[in-house]
Amino acid sequence: MDTDIAIARSAALRPIATIADGLGIPDAAIEPYGRYKAKIALDWLETRKSAAKGRLILVTAINPTPAGEGKTTTSIGLADALRHTGRKAVLALREPSLGPCFGTKGGATGGGRAQVAPMEDINLHFTGDFHAITAAHNLLAAMIDNHIHWGNALQIDIRRVVWRRVLDMNDRALRDIVQSIGGVANGYPRESGFDITVASEVMAILCLADDLADMERRLGDIVVAYTRDRTPITARDLKADGAMAVLLAEAIKPNLVQSLEGTPAFLHGGPFANIAHGCNSVIATRAALWLGDYVVTEAGFGADLGAEKFFNIKCRQAGLAPDAVVIVATARALKMNGGIAKADLAQENVDAVRKGAVNLVRHIENIRQFGVPAIVAINHFYTDSDAEIAAIQEAAAQHGSRAILCRHWAEGGAGAVELADTVAEICETHGGGFAPIYGDELSLFDKIDTVARRIYRAEHAVAEPSVFAQLKRWEDAGYGHLPVCLAKTQYSFSTDPALLGAPTGHIVPVREVRLAAGAGFVVAICGEIMTMPGLPRVPAAEAIHLNDEGLIEGLF
Amino acid sequence: MDTDIAIARSAALRPIATIADGLGIPDAAIEPYGRYKAKIALDWLETRKSAAKGRLILVTAINPTPAGEGKTTTSIGLADALRHTGRKAVLALREPSLGPCFGTKGGATGGGRAQVAPMEDINLHFTGDFHAITAAHNLLAAMIDNHIHWGNALQIDIRRVVWRRVLDMNDRALRDIVQSIGGVANGYPRESGFDITVASEVMAILCLADDLADMERRLGDIVVAYTRDRTPITARDLKADGAMAVLLAEAIKPNLVQSLEGTPAFLHGGPFANIAHGCNSVIATRAALWLGDYVVTEAGFGADLGAEKFFNIKCRQAGLAPDAVVIVATARALKMNGGIAKADLAQENVDAVRKGAVNLVRHIENIRQFGVPAIVAINHFYTDSDAEIAAIQEAAAQHGSRAILCRHWAEGGAGAVELADTVAEICETHGGGFAPIYGDELSLFDKIDTVARRIYRAEHAVAEPSVFAQLKRWEDAGYGHLPVCLAKTQYSFSTDPALLGAPTGHIVPVREVRLAAGAGFVVAICGEIMTMPGLPRVPAAEAIHLNDEGLIEGLF
Repeated sequence: MDTDIAIARSAALRPIATIADGLGIPDAAIEPYGRYKAKIALDWLETRKSAAKGRLILVTAINPTPAGEGKTTTSIGLADALRHTGRKAVLALREPSLGPCFGTKGGATGGGRAQVAPMEDINLHFTGDFHAITAAHNLLAAMIDNHIHWGNALQIDIRRVVWRRVLDMNDRALRDIVQSIGGVANGYPRESGFDITVASEVMAILCLADDLADMERRLGDIVVAYTRDRTPITARDLKADGAMAVLLAEAIKPNLVQSLEGTPAFLHGGPFANIAHGCNSVIATRAALWLGDYVVTEAGFGADLGAEKFFNIKCRQAGLAPDAVVIVATARALKMNGGIAKADLAQENVDAVRKGAVNLVRHIENIRQFGVPAIVAINHFYTDSDAEIAAIQEAAAQHGSRAILCRHWAEGGAGAVELADTVAEICETHGGGFAPIYGDELSLFDKIDTVARRIYRAEHAVAEPSVFAQLKRWEDAGYGHLPVCLAKTQYSFSTDPALLGAPTGHIVPVREVRLAAGAGFVVAICGEIMTMPGLPRVPAAEAIHLNDEGLIEGLF
Repeated sequence: MDTDIAIARSAALRPIATIADGLGIPDAAIEPYGRYKAKIALDWLETRKSAAKGRLILVTAINPTPAGEGKTTTSIGLADALRHTGRKAVLALREPSLGPCFGTKGGATGGGRAQVAPMEDINLHFTGDFHAITAAHNLLAAMIDNHIHWGNALQIDIRRVVWRRVLDMNDRALRDIVQSIGGVANGYPRESGFDITVASEVMAILCLADDLADMERRLGDIVVAYTRDRTPITARDLKADGAMAVLLAEAIKPNLVQSLEGTPAFLHGGPFANIAHGCNSVIATRAALWLGDYVVTEAGFGADLGAEKFFNIKCRQAGLAPDAVVIVATARALKMNGGIAKADLAQENVDAVRKGAVNLVRHIENIRQFGVPAIVAINHFYTDSDAEIAAIQEAAAQHGSRAILCRHWAEGGAGAVELADTVAEICETHGGGFAPIYGDELSLFDKIDTVARRIYRAEHAVAEPSVFAQLKRWEDAGYGHLPVCLAKTQYSFSTDPALLGAPTGHIVPVREVRLAAGAGFVVAICGEIMTMPGLPRVPAAEAIHLNDEGLIEGLF
């Protein structure tokens, strides 16, 4: 089979106006960005609000391993298959981050015959959304230091400025810096640093906002610093919210592209799935629901992180009710969860699959806690044996679910027809039972503890007294109703990345808590979480170049 | 008269495809960015290379004052007037920087009835060029520190890393930083800092490159650091040039927009006019020359900085030969040069105009040194008296030039017909005499000294022995043939911003020199030059917001 890039380049893409037309979007509501990308006008989308709503299908996964699971690929394959079987399906996915493309990650537009396009554009600057978020975030940072420099009328405690800066780049040298050195003209020296743009609260805000006005309100709510007596200072206090909203006025419009099979795909927003909620924008998900009958969306990392936040944060805030969940698993990844090393994955090992399936089973059970039916998509790899596949199907069946073999990577939508039919059937026969697993009224720490016990299956969460004191101060300041966003390793249910399978009896230590008052959640950092990645010894960037025909090589 | 923004919003813009069609650009060569902006494909432009070449008209100005001269406004008015009189005119201008819009500067799209549009888009993210430059610049920075972190095989002396980072933001706190603190994982601590994106050598490279291949070669030539024995380390040594070119592959395509009167305008690139050469891209200027009969372009600040660099750097490198120069002057600015305070400018003062006209006259004489005819555009302001205008015209006539009163701000192209007719006539009757004022073979310091004596009319340039030693090392390393780019205050011919008029007898101290080996010039810093602006006490950002109709307010 051809490489991903060869497949993508040989695909005949339709003009984006044709894709939009298929969704009933008129020309006047489309802003083209080149021939194959467009932004859709929010005011036109609002006119579709009363239209019949589509079914919402979340694609999530077992805990990720270096073997790869193919969550985005499966999302695209499922949507293509729904379309292939005559259903009006629309994708609602995240846009990839630029920075990691130059490290090790490669692109994030699917693979094989299940890709969204144009892949180079999407993986690089796309429609400029992340650049706009970077600019809005850093304008706020500049206005904080500028306010202090010119007299500090708000009496910001410069030791308690919590708003850092961001770049869409893997750059470890910027993680921790001393800024404002060099004398009086450069302001008051203090420690600070940069995160990657996807870790910005502005990104989370753009992805959770209902509309432009709600986004501006949330931007104003951002807590950037505290006074000496710990009174929160907001972006609104600095009068930065209006200019930030102006910088984001284009970025908030959802981006429309297509899969290689012509399925419409909204790619919009891409917050981290650890210190943020890891889902595409509410605006794009709603747009897809207003325009399509079946909406396939995904959430970051495994279901313990991505799906939990999709339910407890995104669906709670936006009033969304998912109809079905697809958990992506591979025989290879389950073998790793069963203790096999990456080098030995090509060998058949049914026992290891059975042993590793405990990870899958726990995710099935977890999804069920939210009142949503879960089925399993086995993303086929050529080394998989029939017996291994059967072992996965057996494990799923024993826990009241179904596991369906899918060949969308090799065959496109035609390879995932059984999955599509099954998902569509579940959407019609189930649903309506969704609820988050904790209420707004629970204390912030009890919310953290609930996720730790019920989803991570830990004994409980623990924290230093200073963390409890901080949570208490936020509760007193009126932030106690917010949901929580736990940041922990994606590789394990526990906070130890080496504990694969389905560990129990572990403790979840809450190292630090952060308030995202604009996004509307409290982040609990459990274990080491990197918010600014570094480049590897040999960065992918070294091989990325334009070939003699001006085509991009090395991006994948 | 209406405000700039009211005029801009009431204008009926034509679809960008219509504007392109007027230049003979086929649909297939256009990449639309929304309805009124497009990028033009380089390969199609190359097919127009052999077409008859248009006349090249540079718009420059007297030394800028707080009173404002209106160079961009006059460029637009002149092009509109050329079009108004039946001539095929095309604009080739710089794109504005985002950062300063949130400080004090406001937009940079002209004013009154002489504007390019859509003004909000152009002043904000436009087509993302500056964001791409920021990303390419910072990727190189990340790769330098990453290389050192992983063993430093190239033996970079971390005390001699000269490549800083950039943001398109006014942020004084980032001027000087200590980076890579926080322990082993974050690399080797060292001092560094951020400049504003327009100060990036990547910006200068994009603006001087012939094509994609030349841009990639220049990116590879960038000197980022030195070893302990002072051997230069380039971006090519770090294998960063390919990925940087990929990040810039869209940005290098020129952007097409229109004036309010429908004149096609290429807005592309925007390097600083102090530490860089201050002109729009060579690619856009050539595109305009291939597609139009009269091309109106501009250069930054006054003619001592912008025009000198346009001639000695841009025209030299690109083999361009300008046909005419328009020097913009106002009665108000000449009164300031004649010693009048800003508060008193509304009062008629013919003597002050006469006294200040020495500044204008010197610029006329300087332009003539390059073998190009110069005429003066008096940008009319409602407080101007007939006697003041006559005094300017008299001064110009005494020095063999003509000064023409223009009312394009109030009347659009119809207000600058006399200027257009005169410029067109000069283009036909003069021309062919252009040459830079120094040869490639002169030593680097002698080039600096030549500009200081012949353009700034200083006694001579001076420098510490360490500067001479540095220039000598670069000459030995093969960079001696490069032109020089002097960075000094824009307010005076001298390095003292308070010395208005036409000072003589001053000395030009070269404080520091920097090598821009990719852009192809050596920067000589004379006096205090700010490469990262700060925000003012009350930043414009505080008033910028979206109004109830979703329109941007406060940007101008």
